Amino acid sequence: MQVSTMSESSKPANIQWGGRFSEATDAFVQRFTASVSFDQRMYRQDIAGSVAHARMLKTAGILSADECDAILQGLEDIRADIEAGTFEWSVELEDVHMNIESALTKRIGLTGKKLHTGRSRNDQVATDIRLYVRDEIDVIASELTRLQTALLALAEREADTIMPGFTHLQTAQPITLGHHLLAWYEMLDRDYSRLQDCRKRMNISPLGSAALAGTSFPIDRHFTAEQLGFDAPSRNSLDSVSDRDFAIELAACGSLIMTHLSRFSEELVLWTSAQFDFIDLPDRFCTGSSIMPQKKNPDVPELVRGKTGRVHGHLVSLLTLMKSQPLAYNKDNQEDKEPLFDLTDTLRDCLKAYADMIPALQAKKDNMYLAAKKGYATATDLADYLVKKGLAFRDAHEIVGKSVAYGLQQKKDLSEMSLDELQQFSDIITDDVFAVLSLEGSVQARDHIGGTAPNQVRSAVATCRELLEQR
Amino acid sequence: MQVSTMSESSKPANIQWGGRFSEATDAFVQRFTASVSFDQRMYRQDIAGSVAHARMLKTAGILSADECDAILQGLEDIRADIEAGTFEWSVELEDVHMNIESALTKRIGLTGKKLHTGRSRNDQVATDIRLYVRDEIDVIASELTRLQTALLALAEREADTIMPGFTHLQTAQPITLGHHLLAWYEMLDRDYSRLQDCRKRMNISPLGSAALAGTSFPIDRHFTAEQLGFDAPSRNSLDSVSDRDFAIELAACGSLIMTHLSRFSEELVLWTSAQFDFIDLPDRFCTGSSIMPQKKNPDVPELVRGKTGRVHGHLVSLLTLMKSQPLAYNKDNQEDKEPLFDLTDTLRDCLKAYADMIPALQAKKDNMYLAAKKGYATATDLADYLVKKGLAFRDAHEIVGKSVAYGLQQKKDLSEMSLDELQQFSDIITDDVFAVLSLEGSVQARDHIGGTAPNQVRSAVATCRELLEQR
Amino acid sequence: MQVSTMSESSKPANIQWGGRFSEATDAFVQRFTASVSFDQRMYRQDIAGSVAHARMLKTAGILSADECDAILQGLEDIRADIEAGTFEWSVELEDVHMNIESALTKRIGLTGKKLHTGRSRNDQVATDIRLYVRDEIDVIASELTRLQTALLALAEREADTIMPGFTHLQTAQPITLGHHLLAWYEMLDRDYSRLQDCRKRMNISPLGSAALAGTSFPIDRHFTAEQLGFDAPSRNSLDSVSDRDFAIELAACGSLIMTHLSRFSEELVLWTSAQFDFIDLPDRFCTGSSIMPQKKNPDVPELVRGKTGRVHGHLVSLLTLMKSQPLAYNKDNQEDKEPLFDLTDTLRDCLKAYADMIPALQAKKDNMYLAAKKGYATATDLADYLVKKGLAFRDAHEIVGKSVAYGLQQKKDLSEMSLDELQQFSDIITDDVFAVLSLEGSVQARDHIGGTAPNQVRSAVATCRELLEQR
Amino acid sequence: MQVSTMSESSKPANIQWGGRFSEATDAFVQRFTASVSFDQRMYRQDIAGSVAHARMLKTAGILSADECDAILQGLEDIRADIEAGTFEWSVELEDVHMNIESALTKRIGLTGKKLHTGRSRNDQVATDIRLYVRDEIDVIASELTRLQTALLALAEREADTIMPGFTHLQTAQPITLGHHLLAWYEMLDRDYSRLQDCRKRMNISPLGSAALAGTSFPIDRHFTAEQLGFDAPSRNSLDSVSDRDFAIELAACGSLIMTHLSRFSEELVLWTSAQFDFIDLPDRFCTGSSIMPQKKNPDVPELVRGKTGRVHGHLVSLLTLMKSQPLAYNKDNQEDKEPLFDLTDTLRDCLKAYADMIPALQAKKDNMYLAAKKGYATATDLADYLVKKGLAFRDAHEIVGKSVAYGLQQKKDLSEMSLDELQQFSDIITDDVFAVLSLEGSVQARDHIGGTAPNQVRSAVATCRELLEQR
Repeated sequence: MQVSTMSESSKPANIQWGGRFSEATDAFVQRFTASVSFDQRMYRQDIAGSVAHARMLKTAGILSADECDAILQGLEDIRADIEAGTFEWSVELEDVHMNIESALTKRIGLTGKKLHTGRSRNDQVATDIRLYVRDEIDVIASELTRLQTALLALAEREADTIMPGFTHLQTAQPITLGHHLLAWYEMLDRDYSRLQDCRKRMNISPLGSAALAGTSFPIDRHFTAEQLGFDAPSRNSLDSVSDRDFAIELAACGSLIMTHLSRFSEELVLWTSAQFDFIDLPDRFCTGSSIMPQKKNPDVPELVRGKTGRVHGHLVSLLTLMKSQPLAYNKDNQEDKEPLFDLTDTLRDCLKAYADMIPALQAKKDNMYLAAKKGYATATDLADYLVKKGLAFRDAHEIVGKSVAYGLQQKKDLSEMSLDELQQFSDIITDDVFAVLSLEGSVQARDHIGGTAPNQVRSAVATCRELLEQR
Repeated sequence: MQVSTMSESSKPANIQWGGRFSEATDAFVQRFTASVSFDQRMYRQDIAGSVAHARMLKTAGILSADECDAILQGLEDIRADIEAGTFEWSVELEDVHMNIESALTKRIGLTGKKLHTGRSRNDQVATDIRLYVRDEIDVIASELTRLQTALLALAEREADTIMPGFTHLQTAQPITLGHHLLAWYEMLDRDYSRLQDCRKRMNISPLGSAALAGTSFPIDRHFTAEQLGFDAPSRNSLDSVSDRDFAIELAACGSLIMTHLSRFSEELVLWTSAQFDFIDLPDRFCTGSSIMPQKKNPDVPELVRGKTGRVHGHLVSLLTLMKSQPLAYNKDNQEDKEPLFDLTDTLRDCLKAYADMIPALQAKKDNMYLAAKKGYATATDLADYLVKKGLAFRDAHEIVGKSVAYGLQQKKDLSEMSLDELQQFSDIITDDVFAVLSLEGSVQARDHIGGTAPNQVRSAVATCRELLEQR
Repeated sequence: MQVSTMSESSKPANIQWGGRFSEATDAFVQRFTASVSFDQRMYRQDIAGSVAHARMLKTAGILSADECDAILQGLEDIRADIEAGTFEWSVELEDVHMNIESALTKRIGLTGKKLHTGRSRNDQVATDIRLYVRDEIDVIASELTRLQTALLALAEREADTIMPGFTHLQTAQPITLGHHLLAWYEMLDRDYSRLQDCRKRMNISPLGSAALAGTSFPIDRHFTAEQLGFDAPSRNSLDSVSDRDFAIELAACGSLIMTHLSRFSEELVLWTSAQFDFIDLPDRFCTGSSIMPQKKNPDVPELVRGKTGRVHGHLVSLLTLMKSQPLAYNKDNQEDKEPLFDLTDTLRDCLKAYADMIPALQAKKDNMYLAAKKGYATATDLADYLVKKGLAFRDAHEIVGKSVAYGLQQKKDLSEMSLDELQQFSDIITDDVFAVLSLEGSVQARDHIGGTAPNQVRSAVATCRELLEQR
Repeated sequence: MQVSTMSESSKPANIQWGGRFSEATDAFVQRFTASVSFDQRMYRQDIAGSVAHARMLKTAGILSADECDAILQGLEDIRADIEAGTFEWSVELEDVHMNIESALTKRIGLTGKKLHTGRSRNDQVATDIRLYVRDEIDVIASELTRLQTALLALAEREADTIMPGFTHLQTAQPITLGHHLLAWYEMLDRDYSRLQDCRKRMNISPLGSAALAGTSFPIDRHFTAEQLGFDAPSRNSLDSVSDRDFAIELAACGSLIMTHLSRFSEELVLWTSAQFDFIDLPDRFCTGSSIMPQKKNPDVPELVRGKTGRVHGHLVSLLTLMKSQPLAYNKDNQEDKEPLFDLTDTLRDCLKAYADMIPALQAKKDNMYLAAKKGYATATDLADYLVKKGLAFRDAHEIVGKSVAYGLQQKKDLSEMSLDELQQFSDIITDDVFAVLSLEGSVQARDHIGGTAPNQVRSAVATCRELLEQR
């Protein structure tokens, strides 16, 4: 990023609005209030907005065809310069909009000054930021799809892999790893759906709202909306220049995405610990220690988990920003950009890291299986067995509780007890119980929509894959 | 709320899961971990969920018709007791679910113990809270509609009322009050749409997910989903018992609603100040001072503005709650309820207060008009006039800037200057300029979709009213 | 809590400030704006403030001795009624202040109406809430001390207990459990210190600030400050009635306390998992499952971890509340109380739960020791050994890295390799290396202030205990 | 900022910890996990820490004098290169620490590899960040002092300037502008005090904690602590490498500072509106509009108000970051830096902008005076007058309420009513009442500590100035 500060500090004030001012802006204040250091990244959107606006001005008879052509050519040249890194950004010109407009006038002369007819920086920035965010949403959505696709493939591969299912981080019941991975898939599926709703709601053109009240020029807002891929022009100009709902809604979507990734991360970190040892992450997603040569740290999951706070923080920042702002545009709103940029960058990077990493995850199936065998994971199956033999559930529950207490004393799992031992607690137990107490029997028994049975997992993968393909 | 704590502290542990435990729960711990003091408000949903579950168990042949009837009658009686205030809630029974189940067993005996077959508290509470939230969303949505309806009526009434439009709280351009009120309408319209998206996404049945993995009983999850008005059963049992996305999404929707109300409030507080004096609020929405007898404080808007933080806080609370939680259910999740309850109560009350208050708002039109006349509100109109006479916008902008500087010195508004004075700055100004410099001329000139012109306001009201009717 | 709502809704407005009002407050608005349902819990502080104020008014000659006595007696009687549960709270009287003042006038007649001379509700509520918060800080601080004391005892008991120290949840180096527990102690020590700073800063009397500007009565603010145990009267009346810094500062302290408790909780949950199995929590801090009879869930740590979000949320709520509020008191400020009350309750309960639970924590020393032996925990010791033999640290680090890679292949810990095997990687290794590679040798070697050596742990316990005793 | 990425992506893994790794880090992962792009700004602190560590190693006999000298010279040269902009930062070397250490070894050979003896990146980064934050606190504190000094000067100048005091943004009582400004002063005074407490608490040396457990080298932690200006070495190594309390505490202090600045900003924005018109801000703290030539927008206050959310967001981000992290260092912690850097930058800039702007603020005294005359600002004075004549306060309050109601009807202020008119409401009113009803009389009557009387303002200025000088 190149941002020059003009050399003399006591030169006339900003050329765009300096008419009524008697004193130049303070040099520090200039830097403090300028946004060009961060909003220049919207140059593509700013130029696209100007192109649409210029074409509309031509259609409306406000610009001649030649003037319009000159403007379009000038803007095209400026974009090329920016992309070549030869454009000189100036803090004195405050923001991306004035930098580009001023460069345009330098290049094409007087005609450049006509571009701003019938618009204001207020609707211009509102347009730019929506275009920018819309692009980012599309990138984030495609990373989400990539990660979901990876999860389906892995879930299918591990549809029969048995592991302990936890509640309260205590062994609860045996489940399949495929089933567990599909739980992650579901979270991301809601994320995708929320993101599309957010996109739909924000895809409305503010252009033509001018400063706050619309303009007296005979503009055609439907034309510019269509040119820019918006679904419609907005319905109220005051609202349009001051609305930042889309930023907050995106930050809220992003906060949930990160919350989900933090949950996956927490599990990956646990699973790579020596104590769980359920999976292996490839070296390239890990780093080592400067002091402990044996370490292989799950850096990527940890860092993603750490970045959760960053996005939650941006959400709070944006909500606080808008709290109690009177209509219409206030300078406060300039503070919407940095959190938005950082959050879209963060989401994209974290999702990319996960979409790259998930296919490379190696399950240590033996360790998972052994862990599932411990901790009385099939106690519920015993209770269900008793109910099917005629006991009321609550009574069955109590009998199993006593069996477990006995097992803890004897250091035996339920499946390791003899029939005699089991019958101490209820004489309706017969030797068909042992099929029920096996891990395989347990997971296969949960064979209804949403259940952990391997064929339910495979069927869910098929359903989800079909839905993904329809995106 | 009546919550008894049993008298002896050293009695056997909880009857529902006490089998494996050798020591009673500590009395303080019991109170600390119990949720019945706040989750009892979900009794209606808990009973509805149990009714659907019992019917399904009958259909599946797990309960006999008689058993099912006994359960339904027992639950009905319990509901009546709760509503009559005669139900005895017990902290020892932890939560609404166990309180009701235990009462059922007391009433109908052994059959009561069969109700919990094939479900767990994990899917039970997930079902209850969704049912509860869905009901609340409907109430909130209807208050939103009521407030929007009130805004349309007021906007129509004030379609011609001229007031200053502000940016940076500085007079910018004249607008109509109707136009300003429609900006509020638009914010609420997005809120309504977000709320419906949230409702749609959450209306999925977790019932049948059991503890985390589904159940070995032959349950029919489509049946219960339909009975309870859900769109479908959920696709993954682990996700279903641990998902709290809907709570966070609702809190995010609510945070935006409150942000909007805080913005309206800010303006109402400003407008009732002696300095603005734009409106009058009826006495019944205000209170007085214990020391300053002349005060009439806009309490309702202030309090609503203050409650914004409360809802933002709940959003943060829920996001923090879920951060890094491993699958599946953890006790942490119990903390989802109080923020949810408080936020739905707050949203409902604040929207109700506004929906009641808005129709009673009295505009002080003369004060608004006078305020619009000050502050060079038609300067943009002069610039537009110059552009229409052939100047480039940026040059016109500078000429007007100088005219304003002159006006500030001479303490004259633009419309108060003579033609000679105006011609000092540009000789292309002729006496058709004065029509342009009037407030009426200014607002009428902004006559395109979204603009402030009175007939645009009326047309927007008509469009929005039609949409409201289709809800 | 008993709060009556008067039966007729169209009776004259509030008796305390109704003079200028022509319309009664709306019944819903009355409930919506009233605070008595939650601020009545400050009755003790409100009465204490009134007692001090009355005594001061007597000293200043504004009340006669008889009048003062009547007021004191009346207030005393009201307190007794409140504590006996016979006081009738009324929503119409809005808040605890007016309820008590109105009851006073009912009891002692005209003299009661004199109590409010020279004060306002604004300074009255500012005084009450500070007194309340000060009391709560003292309770919270004493629970902190109790928990710290428990940690010291446990750390001392476990000063020699070896466990794996983790970074990135990967085994890093052997440490002692005592050392680990002292890390928890340190966090709480900063919390205690922050809490005392907060108390010191808030212990300033706002009483006498009246509505916002002070009063024209010859009050003695030093007198009331002293009576109420404040360090001094405040220096600016506008600030005093609008300042809520102390609430935010306490919420920030509380957020850190909860963050710390969430970290302890995370570890306790991990340690009680079947995979770690490092400790046992007594049954009375755990609960069971309604469906899985074998479960023993670490509910207390989980719930405390879950309550973290609640307190973070209150912090955000209070910050948002105060953002951009103009001076002086605004109705928004009424929203400070519920978050404050809930956060002090939460802190007290969570600390109490921990202070009760920690002494009962049982370390499973064998499991910890075995875990420390795995994962190449003494690799750093080998590197240090090589450095002491003359290698540069970075070179030593690399040699150990290669030894570990070899060990992973061969499934051997460093201490299990033969001298020959070790010498493959560096021929300066001799058989004195095996002392270095033992867990005991490793922890004892870290024998400097802050290090994990058992005698450093014991010495830290002694130092901290002395500091605790000086509180 | 110059950060090169090495050209080939499949070269050997990181040289500092690559020993055990079989696969190079993924190029994207490398960038994703690296911190050098933002942590390089701590180069000064990193070098200072290394200098202290090297000197200590010499004292402890671990480095020879020559080795130590070579290291110090090498570090000095690196610092010079960095400051000259010629240092080549590399993403592959991850962070500021490894970049500098690697450059050192390149320059001085093998000796460079000895510097890391007895420390780890964990304690190194913990040291660096504390040194960095301490420096920033000192800069922020000095800007606070500068702003407070400016406020005292302005308050003294405006000690007699009468303006309306507001509660609920309604005119409440006349106050002096000096008094109002001192309320701002008080908020900042608490901020300063909090900042010093934060500094005191964080000024503890983590150096020597090594990775988490201390080191087996005979280090002298008191020596390095003293060299680096810390008050003492930390008491627990696990805590030291994982503690980020100071970051959160600073963010909390900063959130309050910004909350205060947002309140000042809100008032400045109000006061520069056409409706209030109480003050003038110099042009250089304002900017204009691209479309409305007459605008002079209070950009600096608005932007500062907008930046409040940013800092609140960082606080949330840091709290969320640390929530539930197990001991000791986790990669998540890398996310502490960007919020910290941004918040210290923001605080410094916002305070500087205010400290520059406040002395240039021009009060429009006539407008303030006129505004105070409206709105029955002396109604409380009338009530107090009646009390002094023998009425009970509550009765007096009611009489004044009726007078105000009459005045509203008659459009007369209290001071504009005749004695006859006033006597309608109470016959104890005599013509000495008019002195009481004047603005001057009202403010002068509030003549006690904290009151608004001009001589109280001057006396408070004197007291505060003395305290400022003692800093």
